[in-house]
Amino acid sequence: MRIPKAVERLVSSFEKLPGIGPKTAQRLTFYLLHVPQAELDTFSEAVKQLKSNTKICSICFNVGEQDPCQICTDRERERNMICVVEEPLDVAALERSDGYRGLYHVLHGRLEPLRNIGPEELHIHDLLPRLENGTISEIILATNPTMEGEATAMYIAKIIKESRIQNSGIRKIKITRIGRGLPVGGDLEYADDVTLARSLEGRREF
Amino acid sequence: MRIPKAVERLVSSFEKLPGIGPKTAQRLTFYLLHVPQAELDTFSEAVKQLKSNTKICSICFNVGEQDPCQICTDRERERNMICVVEEPLDVAALERSDGYRGLYHVLHGRLEPLRNIGPEELHIHDLLPRLENGTISEIILATNPTMEGEATAMYIAKIIKESRIQNSGIRKIKITRIGRGLPVGGDLEYADDVTLARSLEGRREF
Repeated sequence: MRIPKAVERLVSSFEKLPGIGPKTAQRLTFYLLHVPQAELDTFSEAVKQLKSNTKICSICFNVGEQDPCQICTDRERERNMICVVEEPLDVAALERSDGYRGLYHVLHGRLEPLRNIGPEELHIHDLLPRLENGTISEIILATNPTMEGEATAMYIAKIIKESRIQNSGIRKIKITRIGRGLPVGGDLEYADDVTLARSLEGRREF
Repeated sequence: MRIPKAVERLVSSFEKLPGIGPKTAQRLTFYLLHVPQAELDTFSEAVKQLKSNTKICSICFNVGEQDPCQICTDRERERNMICVVEEPLDVAALERSDGYRGLYHVLHGRLEPLRNIGPEELHIHDLLPRLENGTISEIILATNPTMEGEATAMYIAKIIKESRIQNSGIRKIKITRIGRGLPVGGDLEYADDVTLARSLEGRREF
């Protein structure tokens, strides 16, 4: 049996998505065969319009509806700290946590030498001009606590430390890294060695 | 931060797919933000055209490009047996296995009283007219070996046995169920009780 071309096309589109293999792609496609055409049209429009109706903020590179984005233009936020994250989804997660009221800087990835992703492929060097006007007093490096995320954080810390701004002597910018340790609800017994070591390093007075 | 409407719309479209939760839907959407517009257009077209470029065969209810489908019109197939399956994907799987050269009948689901899916919602009663012309000598019930699949197979076996065709005395149609037992590459030690019991029932001479 030859699978119809229309089905094959959608299967191969689904397969390109991260975490979706050939089996899942087939399952999703055959599921959509049972769905009313109106719903397919909505889905199709949403895919088509995704990029034309979103804008990347030219200041922080977050995804939003305006440029500059809502956060960059919000006068009520603390404008003296920038939190550097890998992806727009990380901004959404931090905003949900309600623990941060400052500005953001989205890198759109992390340094991955094995995949040929260097500093030029990310918005790393766009961060320095934001520090020039002297209002920023702290940079929080909130890249993921993975091997690549740590390397990216170290690289950013290094270029800020070596930059003209940090060495002009007017004002030192504090560079911090998000706390690493046991997740809330976690279990000491099952934590890996590195996490445990980090949670001891990062201990705070009670 | 408000998530852009275009992003929200696509997230909610993804969420409607089976096995995709809110987190995965967000991840897929933000992934697509990095994809070139041309690829989004291909994806969007594939979704839109899925149903208009596929036809449901009016004989076997399989999904294909023509009606009747390739299998129903193929004169080289064995036209005396019908294999009853739940979904078009099952046809694809059986075709790949190369173990069957007969015809198919796709139910488009299984009996699920808890979800209000009865015989009327499936193509169960469309099976009987196919048996009337007397060319069919065997019906293979290949619904899934799940609770619902077994119930569906039992129901179909019952209506065929009670039907006019089976009782006209001209020719008895053999009704069979696909073999159940240990999957190839499986391990006796880890098999569940029911599967083991079935594999003993279904033993064959060596």
